[in-house]
Amino acid sequence: MLKGAVANLFNLSFNAASDVPLYKQLAEAISGLISRGLMQAGERLPATRELAGQLGLNRTTVSAAYAVLEESGLIQGHVGRGSFVAKGGIAAPAASTDWGAILPPIDLGFGLSIHETEISFANSRPAGNGFPLAQFRRLSKQVIDSPDAAEILQLGSPHGYGPLRRYLLEQATAAGIARPGDDLIITNGCQQGLDLLARLFARGGESVVLEDPVYHGLVRVFSRAGANILSIDLGETGIDIDRLEEVILQHRPRLLVLTPSFQNPTGITISCEHRKRIVELAQRSGVVLLENDIYSELRYYGTALPTLKELDETGNTILLRSYSKVSFPGLRVGWVIAPRAVIECLAEAKQISDLHSDQLSQAVLLRFAESGELAQHIERTRRSGRERLNAVLRACAAHLPSGTKFTRPEGGMSLWVELPAPLNAENVLSRAQERGVNFLPGRYFSARRTHARGLRISFGGLDTEQITRGVQILGEAARRELSASAVSAKSEPAAALV
Amino acid sequence: MLKGAVANLFNLSFNAASDVPLYKQLAEAISGLISRGLMQAGERLPATRELAGQLGLNRTTVSAAYAVLEESGLIQGHVGRGSFVAKGGIAAPAASTDWGAILPPIDLGFGLSIHETEISFANSRPAGNGFPLAQFRRLSKQVIDSPDAAEILQLGSPHGYGPLRRYLLEQATAAGIARPGDDLIITNGCQQGLDLLARLFARGGESVVLEDPVYHGLVRVFSRAGANILSIDLGETGIDIDRLEEVILQHRPRLLVLTPSFQNPTGITISCEHRKRIVELAQRSGVVLLENDIYSELRYYGTALPTLKELDETGNTILLRSYSKVSFPGLRVGWVIAPRAVIECLAEAKQISDLHSDQLSQAVLLRFAESGELAQHIERTRRSGRERLNAVLRACAAHLPSGTKFTRPEGGMSLWVELPAPLNAENVLSRAQERGVNFLPGRYFSARRTHARGLRISFGGLDTEQITRGVQILGEAARRELSASAVSAKSEPAAALV
Repeated sequence: MLKGAVANLFNLSFNAASDVPLYKQLAEAISGLISRGLMQAGERLPATRELAGQLGLNRTTVSAAYAVLEESGLIQGHVGRGSFVAKGGIAAPAASTDWGAILPPIDLGFGLSIHETEISFANSRPAGNGFPLAQFRRLSKQVIDSPDAAEILQLGSPHGYGPLRRYLLEQATAAGIARPGDDLIITNGCQQGLDLLARLFARGGESVVLEDPVYHGLVRVFSRAGANILSIDLGETGIDIDRLEEVILQHRPRLLVLTPSFQNPTGITISCEHRKRIVELAQRSGVVLLENDIYSELRYYGTALPTLKELDETGNTILLRSYSKVSFPGLRVGWVIAPRAVIECLAEAKQISDLHSDQLSQAVLLRFAESGELAQHIERTRRSGRERLNAVLRACAAHLPSGTKFTRPEGGMSLWVELPAPLNAENVLSRAQERGVNFLPGRYFSARRTHARGLRISFGGLDTEQITRGVQILGEAARRELSASAVSAKSEPAAALV
Repeated sequence: MLKGAVANLFNLSFNAASDVPLYKQLAEAISGLISRGLMQAGERLPATRELAGQLGLNRTTVSAAYAVLEESGLIQGHVGRGSFVAKGGIAAPAASTDWGAILPPIDLGFGLSIHETEISFANSRPAGNGFPLAQFRRLSKQVIDSPDAAEILQLGSPHGYGPLRRYLLEQATAAGIARPGDDLIITNGCQQGLDLLARLFARGGESVVLEDPVYHGLVRVFSRAGANILSIDLGETGIDIDRLEEVILQHRPRLLVLTPSFQNPTGITISCEHRKRIVELAQRSGVVLLENDIYSELRYYGTALPTLKELDETGNTILLRSYSKVSFPGLRVGWVIAPRAVIECLAEAKQISDLHSDQLSQAVLLRFAESGELAQHIERTRRSGRERLNAVLRACAAHLPSGTKFTRPEGGMSLWVELPAPLNAENVLSRAQERGVNFLPGRYFSARRTHARGLRISFGGLDTEQITRGVQILGEAARRELSASAVSAKSEPAAALV
């Protein structure tokens, strides 16, 4: 492992979805390291070529970032010697506050490591070119012109915009998902649902069971809340139920968090029989079941399975849903269905968090759902998703090196690849990025294990040509890395006997 | 103090801004008490007349709530004997989860106690009938029709919608508020800014200094985060700076949270001289200064004062601002300006909280600001605000009993009344509610002191006739309560000598 400032620099990550150009993101990140005392005055920055190589950026991007930092007086360039952190640049005025000592440590690896590549499998989000813009425009204008506009613009309720809340609760009740003792709260997407629930159920170092690999935002929300994270390995055929039972009986966790349909990152779906066993186990042991159900509508093959919430006749399962994956992620609307006592506590936590969710988007999404346009959009997304899924499975079978394992989801946006030994996903990523292809390596999805040979392919935002070409390049990168590691294994001197 | 179930019932509070009718809110609240084990099977509910009186509701509202509960099997009515909590109603199926034992205690007094009244001084929010709806509609449609729509609907950045973020930072830089080392993050209104900052600065039981009285959402966010709350009394002339200095030197708090302009609930503004002393004190002691600056644009008299952020040449002051009070509260857009290291940590916390803020509202408010419509709306709000302020000050002087003290703000939405002894604001409130007038008594604004004689009059959402009539009724209620307490003091038997 690298140490100190260089390790911090080489672990920087960037957000390609941001409007901020990459050179500015890099300049700001370095400026942050300097202002937090993680890079000291006089310290030498890596050569632009070296940093560019490590971060998978163009050299011009790094040069532009250095130029910005030099201009603001934070670093100084010396011809032939390189760039150095300046002593007290103008961006760091005489400060009585030592932020480095006060602020909590930031995890620089948290942000998605998205580089400037042509084909990115890194983002689990729907394709923007599939957005039904004309319908969105027509329906939004209806909302804006409606007599409800004044009410939408006024202060609202922590529980959510009344008409949307009633609509969602009626739909869930009609579908047998919400029970008489249940209630519903609207959140800023599912992430806020998780955050509010973590405040309720993981406040005193309680144990929380997560799947492994798992979506990193899910690990973060519970670990930041102070939970003791336990994990259940996902194998090729899904969650290990016997192991789950052992963990529950041994550790008596407060919470079990599952994504039963098209799990992120693996795409794995828990079978109906296993769902029943899980619900029965939760009832027997008193563990609270949290069902993260944001992908289930994106089923391209097979038949829909009942949610854990439906199977749990005690009504105690907590269900999270969202419009983000099936409509417009930029409109932040998710919801939680749970027993009334839980929703009451969530509403109080929500009020403390941000009073209530934005009402304009709630009203627009309600109109989108009520008009039937959402259902039509989901139908179109399923058709195109089926083609994407076919393309990615075909390409994986054709182009990945022999010995590679990958999941075969029936829906969702992602699948999971396990490269054969001695490959390492991060090394393959570096090679793939050189050829313009990006993905997230296994370590981003670690609940406990490192998943060094694992990687996620998110295919939801790409067309079938991009998918096929991207997987082909990924396969070539893996094979080149295999050859290189065979050579390096041969040339490695014998280890000392100790 | 009342004990047990009856106390829980009598402390229930309701949200008149909600779409949920009051009888349903009441039914749900009682159902919550039952499901959380706070009301036991067989326990008798208060008579409808009694509960209606205590909660300031109509008796028909309480009867309707009881009917709903009876229908769902949660309570049983016995003619002549009253209503009782049923044994295992259908809404509470055989449950393996004891929510009462798991969930954190909820503070039933947290929600605003807003009753069905004609004139409510309880809500600190702008008047909905002053919203520039035509302009909002025109500009929203421009945003929706623009080529940016697809980007607005796609996943965004935790820092906020790029164009709005750049606009706000440029404005703040031009105004001398943001310095070269500063950055900006967009939050779901100021409340989320406070919540994210509490995660950074109040995580390990650190001490936080608040004004007293203070906005209850501000106390809550820091006490829930685990902060040790210290408080500085606000007198008639504002914050006690000498006392502040003592508290800072004695307790070495991490954070000092001030609302220097038109503070909620008092309307008090800190003078320029005192602002300089506060900034100097913060610099000297290393306490982090958090400036909650959401009302300063609503100045109706006098001249604008510099923000603490402007006066602090170290750049270390953290500034919170919001569009909520000066435009549309239902669109949740606030922001934080702070040194880059702080914004970096906030962005990480924001990503864990809810990924990013809703982008449609951000884009609409950007258009509203850039077009100049926001400035015109603020100008109109200032004109009508001046009239409201004149009306409330005139009415307080004319109608409140002699010995009453009240603040004389030059802007904002609220003023603070201190009733003469032996009056109690809650008793006066009960009498005022009988006459259709509502306000929030002092205990809602307690950082440490109870403010039994204090009350907040929020005049921002009412017209001048309502204000005048409302204060007149409030004054009459206070005088009736004064007479009653004089009578009761006379008729009170002598206390035992112990």
